Amino acid sequence: MSSNSFGQLFRVTTWGESHGAAIGCVIDGVPPRLLIDEGEIQTYLDRRRPGQSRFTTQRREPDAVRIVSGTFEGATTGTPLSLIIDNVDQRSKDYSEIKDKFRPGHADYTYWQKYGIRDYRGGGRSSARETAMRVAAGAVARKVLGDAITIRGALVQVGDLAIDRDTWNWDEVERNPFWCPDAAMAKNWESFLDKVRKSGSSTGAVIEVMASGVPVGLGAPIYGKLDADIAAAMMSINAVKGVEIGAGFAATALSGEQNADEMRIGNDGTVHFLSNAAGGVLGGISTGQDVVVRFAVKPTSSILAPRRTVTTGGEETEISTKGRHDPCVGIRAVPVGEAMLACVLADHLLRHRAQCGV
Amino acid sequence: MSSNSFGQLFRVTTWGESHGAAIGCVIDGVPPRLLIDEGEIQTYLDRRRPGQSRFTTQRREPDAVRIVSGTFEGATTGTPLSLIIDNVDQRSKDYSEIKDKFRPGHADYTYWQKYGIRDYRGGGRSSARETAMRVAAGAVARKVLGDAITIRGALVQVGDLAIDRDTWNWDEVERNPFWCPDAAMAKNWESFLDKVRKSGSSTGAVIEVMASGVPVGLGAPIYGKLDADIAAAMMSINAVKGVEIGAGFAATALSGEQNADEMRIGNDGTVHFLSNAAGGVLGGISTGQDVVVRFAVKPTSSILAPRRTVTTGGEETEISTKGRHDPCVGIRAVPVGEAMLACVLADHLLRHRAQCGV
Amino acid sequence: MSSNSFGQLFRVTTWGESHGAAIGCVIDGVPPRLLIDEGEIQTYLDRRRPGQSRFTTQRREPDAVRIVSGTFEGATTGTPLSLIIDNVDQRSKDYSEIKDKFRPGHADYTYWQKYGIRDYRGGGRSSARETAMRVAAGAVARKVLGDAITIRGALVQVGDLAIDRDTWNWDEVERNPFWCPDAAMAKNWESFLDKVRKSGSSTGAVIEVMASGVPVGLGAPIYGKLDADIAAAMMSINAVKGVEIGAGFAATALSGEQNADEMRIGNDGTVHFLSNAAGGVLGGISTGQDVVVRFAVKPTSSILAPRRTVTTGGEETEISTKGRHDPCVGIRAVPVGEAMLACVLADHLLRHRAQCGV
Amino acid sequence: MSSNSFGQLFRVTTWGESHGAAIGCVIDGVPPRLLIDEGEIQTYLDRRRPGQSRFTTQRREPDAVRIVSGTFEGATTGTPLSLIIDNVDQRSKDYSEIKDKFRPGHADYTYWQKYGIRDYRGGGRSSARETAMRVAAGAVARKVLGDAITIRGALVQVGDLAIDRDTWNWDEVERNPFWCPDAAMAKNWESFLDKVRKSGSSTGAVIEVMASGVPVGLGAPIYGKLDADIAAAMMSINAVKGVEIGAGFAATALSGEQNADEMRIGNDGTVHFLSNAAGGVLGGISTGQDVVVRFAVKPTSSILAPRRTVTTGGEETEISTKGRHDPCVGIRAVPVGEAMLACVLADHLLRHRAQCGV
Repeated sequence: MSSNSFGQLFRVTTWGESHGAAIGCVIDGVPPRLLIDEGEIQTYLDRRRPGQSRFTTQRREPDAVRIVSGTFEGATTGTPLSLIIDNVDQRSKDYSEIKDKFRPGHADYTYWQKYGIRDYRGGGRSSARETAMRVAAGAVARKVLGDAITIRGALVQVGDLAIDRDTWNWDEVERNPFWCPDAAMAKNWESFLDKVRKSGSSTGAVIEVMASGVPVGLGAPIYGKLDADIAAAMMSINAVKGVEIGAGFAATALSGEQNADEMRIGNDGTVHFLSNAAGGVLGGISTGQDVVVRFAVKPTSSILAPRRTVTTGGEETEISTKGRHDPCVGIRAVPVGEAMLACVLADHLLRHRAQCGV
Repeated sequence: MSSNSFGQLFRVTTWGESHGAAIGCVIDGVPPRLLIDEGEIQTYLDRRRPGQSRFTTQRREPDAVRIVSGTFEGATTGTPLSLIIDNVDQRSKDYSEIKDKFRPGHADYTYWQKYGIRDYRGGGRSSARETAMRVAAGAVARKVLGDAITIRGALVQVGDLAIDRDTWNWDEVERNPFWCPDAAMAKNWESFLDKVRKSGSSTGAVIEVMASGVPVGLGAPIYGKLDADIAAAMMSINAVKGVEIGAGFAATALSGEQNADEMRIGNDGTVHFLSNAAGGVLGGISTGQDVVVRFAVKPTSSILAPRRTVTTGGEETEISTKGRHDPCVGIRAVPVGEAMLACVLADHLLRHRAQCGV
Repeated sequence: MSSNSFGQLFRVTTWGESHGAAIGCVIDGVPPRLLIDEGEIQTYLDRRRPGQSRFTTQRREPDAVRIVSGTFEGATTGTPLSLIIDNVDQRSKDYSEIKDKFRPGHADYTYWQKYGIRDYRGGGRSSARETAMRVAAGAVARKVLGDAITIRGALVQVGDLAIDRDTWNWDEVERNPFWCPDAAMAKNWESFLDKVRKSGSSTGAVIEVMASGVPVGLGAPIYGKLDADIAAAMMSINAVKGVEIGAGFAATALSGEQNADEMRIGNDGTVHFLSNAAGGVLGGISTGQDVVVRFAVKPTSSILAPRRTVTTGGEETEISTKGRHDPCVGIRAVPVGEAMLACVLADHLLRHRAQCGV
Repeated sequence: MSSNSFGQLFRVTTWGESHGAAIGCVIDGVPPRLLIDEGEIQTYLDRRRPGQSRFTTQRREPDAVRIVSGTFEGATTGTPLSLIIDNVDQRSKDYSEIKDKFRPGHADYTYWQKYGIRDYRGGGRSSARETAMRVAAGAVARKVLGDAITIRGALVQVGDLAIDRDTWNWDEVERNPFWCPDAAMAKNWESFLDKVRKSGSSTGAVIEVMASGVPVGLGAPIYGKLDADIAAAMMSINAVKGVEIGAGFAATALSGEQNADEMRIGNDGTVHFLSNAAGGVLGGISTGQDVVVRFAVKPTSSILAPRRTVTTGGEETEISTKGRHDPCVGIRAVPVGEAMLACVLADHLLRHRAQCGV
């Protein structure tokens, strides 16, 4: 048991605080002889890196990853990979404001109550900075999955502005700062978020992540369900408040006929489903269709407006966030969600191979 | 690692197929000297038992639980509890229809593909019958939690008919066959479900489960988050397609001001929150407020209308479900959701005690 | 985490007390489509069954095992196997003697101190009766390993009487009630044990278990070492006080030249070792040679001579064991040691397959 | 599951190769508010550091440890500790000799066969260098255990030269380069090891580790036994081939009367044992007496004499170790054994607290 690890066979353990010397992760169980280098992991980290548009936090971190163990001459050796990113932008800020006050919506109060101590600098361990290591681990997971499996994510809702799914264009996702697959909606979000940002407020978002090429058979019955592990993985991301698979909550209002995906034999002689309400998972096991996951990210808790709170000493007070912050932390959650899905799938690929062979 | 176990310290392992001789569970890690008897567990099983109204399946199972190990003279001894329920109603039905055909929406196809073999009788291991053991384990978990923590569940939506939350009345929940806290809506559901049932179709539902009296501090950072474990627990229940905590998906459309729950000092000198958008969890750790969870159950996959599918031999065919079935499996998921929340909380209570003392 | 489970992928959980209604185990992670039936498991249980000679306990248990889940039409389905043995010989003995007195050498005192409660009937959970389920699980593990891997055990020392290893004859092991591979020594043990038994005393034993046909590559570095898992498995057997691999403690007095097994290419073109001081494990990973394990079992703690002890109430007293008991519990540990080695190897076979493929 | 982690609640994960940039460990589950600094951990590392006498390896490593996460203002915060030691003495040696040849007695052959790739520089992951992180973790474990529990180790046998236990003097342990509690025997070992070293050979050793002040009740039944976890922990140390508790293998030749430790009520009103054949563990649970563990370390495998071996290409050849090496690696295993015992006890302290409270 470890509260800072996830996965069973592809097992990731992360460590580090927002303003410590470094953050890092250890990945155990990686198959040997996979070609991997720092540049490849860096590519994914760069996609997550803050400060790339006016819509994400301005912390300036190069987030340069180093592989410190587990590879030899460019290939994995079967021993644990240790990945480290030095914290460069740990400017000695003035923490007097948050040292003794619990920021509403943050983990300040609960950490304090649980542990009786907390590293308040930049959120300490509860900072979203930890998600950089998820992205790094996800890059390794993709190597385990191989090229036949593609994992992509997109932002599908900001505030109450949802995309038009009929216009979904994956190419568009790389063209705007929101990972938005709907070019028109990206424009709307831009205006909306500028307004939110200028008013010092914040808003939430829904991210959709999809894995294509997943073979049928990954996952396991009952408590080892692929979707149960996905749910935990996504819910473990900072600020996530909901997760759904396939039709998700909307399945409630479907009829049995609409919901139960019918099957036919395709031209290639294999089984094809005529729809994908299941989101690629039946009975906790992948169907071979796209695995489709959505998760909701709450509005950034750090906002300009003064908010009522209490101090560590038990006194009532107010707090407001100084400086610039993400108006919508959900934007940066897209590469994180992709990484978590990659890790869960890599884990289940190994688990399936263990029990059922290849 | 075990696909049929969940929990870290309060650890439940279930076994058994729908039409085997029995189903059962082993619960390890139970603290010693808790007073518990079969009658108490039976009370919770009786709430879940099928066949209690025309809206749930007609399988006639007494579901009589036996405690076969782990107690002595009415108290737990610290050794594993083994709970067993004999399968009584395992009538030798005619399985020729489902033996070779994959039922859409069910786990038939994925189990077959994964294992190359399946116990097709009544769904085998993927049958919702397994949830009886979750309910039994939940009864034990409640003993671990003690009387100060109350866990209750309700059905809050059937099809697209959602309750009016302003009329929420917990007493009402026990008065109708739907665990509905809104008396007026219970009437609507009755008509709606009669129509659904008569048409041979089915519909989905949303369940809300709430734990009151949970102390601040349960849960852990990052991958041991209380809400991540709750998400996995709920998503592991048969037919569940979505899980959310507190404001959940609706948090997306809130502003930062609306979402971040403010804090004041109450008359009792302790911290009070002025709202509960967080659903009782911040940074993965309980806040002391009610833990509020909702999950979506898809429509029953077994319906009367003929559906296109394929056979184990790779041929196209059709299948339709004979006899009576649940028009809405979500109804019976209420006690199951309660049980899962109880188990997760019991586990985290022990985990917290391990790391932080009492 | 579970104190009553072992193995990571081939995962065995046992439950039950000596004088409860039944004992049982759940085996999760078993590959699908293995042919297995109760008769095959029973064969191994019959080898362990007490009361087969005057040198082992006279408890009369048929130890008839039932497979209650996890198989279908004679083959494993990939879902958990539940094996149950009813306790038949749970005669209502007079427990007044041991109810309040801690038997020296037994777990009575420590269970009481840990849990504040104990099922004193026949030792409760700490009874060697639990080992029946290890043997049952071992039978399943052998199916996972396949016919190419053979696991055999023998008694190599009783009291201070060690066998002459030069006379080792596996056929002899089945011919005497001691699993002794040295016919002459078996005679000596007979006289010795008759003397021990008649004097109401007891003695210890050393068991050697050997696995042949184990492929090179099972095990893992550092904390997943094959020999580390074997050590834990053997030390977890009741009354075991020591475990060694290959040359074991005697390696201490070897020179580096004697200890480091040299390698040559055999006529078959593969690597052969010229000796096996390593006991088939280097760096925690199997070498392809025989895996050789020995473990020491302490003398039976239940003896006729009155022994000084204390009561649950904190008073000094004496206790002596009535009736007949094993003069040497080590004898019955042979099939148990075999089973544990089978389980550890099956687990590592699956673990190896997960990380490295086939 | 993780092959590079151990412990359940006090959970240590190590990473790093002998000649990579650094080695490190992550310790999860550490209780909050323990005062700990790098200097304290360094004290233990310095005891293990190589090159302190002519009897241990001459690798010159300062082994300076850094705490990179998990503490704040000198105290643990409940989040994972990351400890890192940079590899300074990673001189670019000539590895042509060991690159293609498997060194007998080492893990070269098995790693190669398992993974199809290996970092041959200095043994890579299988190097004893990894044990530095065990010692670091052990220092943290001691903080968890508190001052009331003392863990000490000693060398009790080198080659076939065993100490006279009647002369045991803990003060002596710190006075000679062997951790030998018998001053006279330390002299003998000095002559013996000089001879061994000059001849280019090596020898084995037996280490004894003892924990005093352990409360009764740590450990758990069946597979969570304290001594089973100790056995795995010790067997996981490089070159260890045997582990025993209390009387250990010698218990075999004891009579039941000699072995079963009798109990009396001491002057302080608590239970006292009249002997400690059990080594402080009964039924897998601590008795409150000293926990006594011994383990055997095989002779150093790297020796001067040419040894027959094979190459990665499948050809027969010879190999001999150049330069100076430990004549007896067992010497440096003393602080490692202490650390492992500390870690196991810390883990079980938390596990006990979880299930049974304080």
